[in-house]
Amino acid sequence: MPELRKDPITGDWVLLSPKRTGRPTDFTKKSVDATQRSEECPFCPGNEAMTPPEVFAVPITGKGKGWQIRVVPNKFPAVEPAGAVGGHGEDLFERLDGAGLHEVIIENPDHGATLATLPESAIEEVLRAYQSRFRAIEKDGQFSYVLIFKNHGPEAGATLEHGHSQLVALPVVPPRARQELDGARAHFLAQKRCIYCDIIQEEAAGVRFVTGNDDFIVIAPFASRFAWEVWLLPRRHRARFAQASEAELSSLAPVLKTTLASLDEALGLPPYNLIVQSAPIRDPSDEHYHWHIEIAPRLSKLAGFEWATGAYINSMPPEEAARKLREIMHLAPPGS
Amino acid sequence: MPELRKDPITGDWVLLSPKRTGRPTDFTKKSVDATQRSEECPFCPGNEAMTPPEVFAVPITGKGKGWQIRVVPNKFPAVEPAGAVGGHGEDLFERLDGAGLHEVIIENPDHGATLATLPESAIEEVLRAYQSRFRAIEKDGQFSYVLIFKNHGPEAGATLEHGHSQLVALPVVPPRARQELDGARAHFLAQKRCIYCDIIQEEAAGVRFVTGNDDFIVIAPFASRFAWEVWLLPRRHRARFAQASEAELSSLAPVLKTTLASLDEALGLPPYNLIVQSAPIRDPSDEHYHWHIEIAPRLSKLAGFEWATGAYINSMPPEEAARKLREIMHLAPPGS
Repeated sequence: MPELRKDPITGDWVLLSPKRTGRPTDFTKKSVDATQRSEECPFCPGNEAMTPPEVFAVPITGKGKGWQIRVVPNKFPAVEPAGAVGGHGEDLFERLDGAGLHEVIIENPDHGATLATLPESAIEEVLRAYQSRFRAIEKDGQFSYVLIFKNHGPEAGATLEHGHSQLVALPVVPPRARQELDGARAHFLAQKRCIYCDIIQEEAAGVRFVTGNDDFIVIAPFASRFAWEVWLLPRRHRARFAQASEAELSSLAPVLKTTLASLDEALGLPPYNLIVQSAPIRDPSDEHYHWHIEIAPRLSKLAGFEWATGAYINSMPPEEAARKLREIMHLAPPGS
Repeated sequence: MPELRKDPITGDWVLLSPKRTGRPTDFTKKSVDATQRSEECPFCPGNEAMTPPEVFAVPITGKGKGWQIRVVPNKFPAVEPAGAVGGHGEDLFERLDGAGLHEVIIENPDHGATLATLPESAIEEVLRAYQSRFRAIEKDGQFSYVLIFKNHGPEAGATLEHGHSQLVALPVVPPRARQELDGARAHFLAQKRCIYCDIIQEEAAGVRFVTGNDDFIVIAPFASRFAWEVWLLPRRHRARFAQASEAELSSLAPVLKTTLASLDEALGLPPYNLIVQSAPIRDPSDEHYHWHIEIAPRLSKLAGFEWATGAYINSMPPEEAARKLREIMHLAPPGS
């Protein structure tokens, strides 16, 4: 059973998950051909028996059988389902059982497809699959927090090449989400406005604007922690990703595709992390939190400085990243 | 001029340092021979002109001229000296000039030497050089916080191979140090004892004890964020590294060497980060903070989960890491 341990000094939580060693990786094999991929990749069609049974699937539409998207439990889970969330302390040292869900969302049968290259309709299906799992876990009521994230490329932490996202459901609200919620709440109490709505208003025609449509805006955030970091924000205020409408997900797909394709062009298919940030399940934060997607290419290593200070060093001004991405998209300068 | 930007939501600080792109790296050249190293490495003897002039140096003892340790300003600084720390806000968006010092401590003339392979006397000199710079910056009084850290190996963020550490002096106390200080203060107020002293007492004969001598204890911390993370704690309570005595630094050298050599043996010369954690310069934290060294091998990538949650996933129980390190050191089990 994984275990959550609390640092007695900082209050940081650490997930101790011994099972995660020994995970397979296919990145070490250089230049595998497509046939090998299908044979060895646990996410390719025909190899369904290599993963645990699916918890959710989108069948292929029209003719024949098969799947377009599969969601399966992670074979090397960081957290595991459990009957109850138990805690036990030994004076200085607090522990919690690491109860939770850890799932893998296999985005497409095509081994080499990415969210930048898939057709918009297929990306929309991925977003719908994300939301189906979010909604099901909210309804189940066992957990406090759901996170969907994607590690693309080995430098971003992916151990398998075939396009996939991950879902983690946790019994506690993790530190960073808590910090964001606290910041958003403080702004709301002072201003009576959502801070994300304020940022959307401020950035809509500014130097950090990247692209957008009627429903979404993409910006390079003012305090970008990583070079080329971008945020995709829904213009409509909603705290949780589960609250996004069908029309919004349809509208998000082309914006997500364009953004990722532009980063691919600017940086030559960079590794990246993508996270869907949403308010906790049991939290009255509907007024002040605002769900969104964050994407950060992994171009430099987090090193001693970042670890020691908790601060980030970024060498790319977000204003310049936004300008270059607009150029790639052939968009007019903001305000013109 | 680098710039410190505050995230309007989380309060996180980001150091925006455009100059850091274009840093040289010598890790891409495979199997360079020793001659090439000396010719191209800016930290090798004879190439002193390739770095800015030194701010501190330890000359070779005895015969001849030359240096044993050099401290030079970082050519690609994350922060830069400035006359004054200036701030400016634009509503949502707060900035500070990134005023500070960023120095490189070249640990030895030998290109390939490491803190695990150098003789104890040379390691002691490195620790003394660290402390000289700490003390000089404290005395100068311009900055609030000094951090010494070491990125060893490219996966740990090092861009040059020749053994070196880094020093950063900052105008603000960074978030992680603030969090540690707050945690330590809360414990002190509740218990009237230093939490690090409590941890030393608790772990001295326990399953997470690694090694030690009269002045230092090495442990695998209870909530290790990284596999094989170890802490070196002075038994004597002192808040700041600058307060360590000469005798303590002499006593630390062999403990540091043994610890790093054991990690090298256990993990096959792993990349790692080392940080010297000390109380801020202007802070009345003498009673509740306790300076120490943290070392974390870089075996897995920080990925989407860690970034999104601020929590860590660790697959190696610290009890097991401690046991294996004790075995390598041929130490008896704790309590025996």
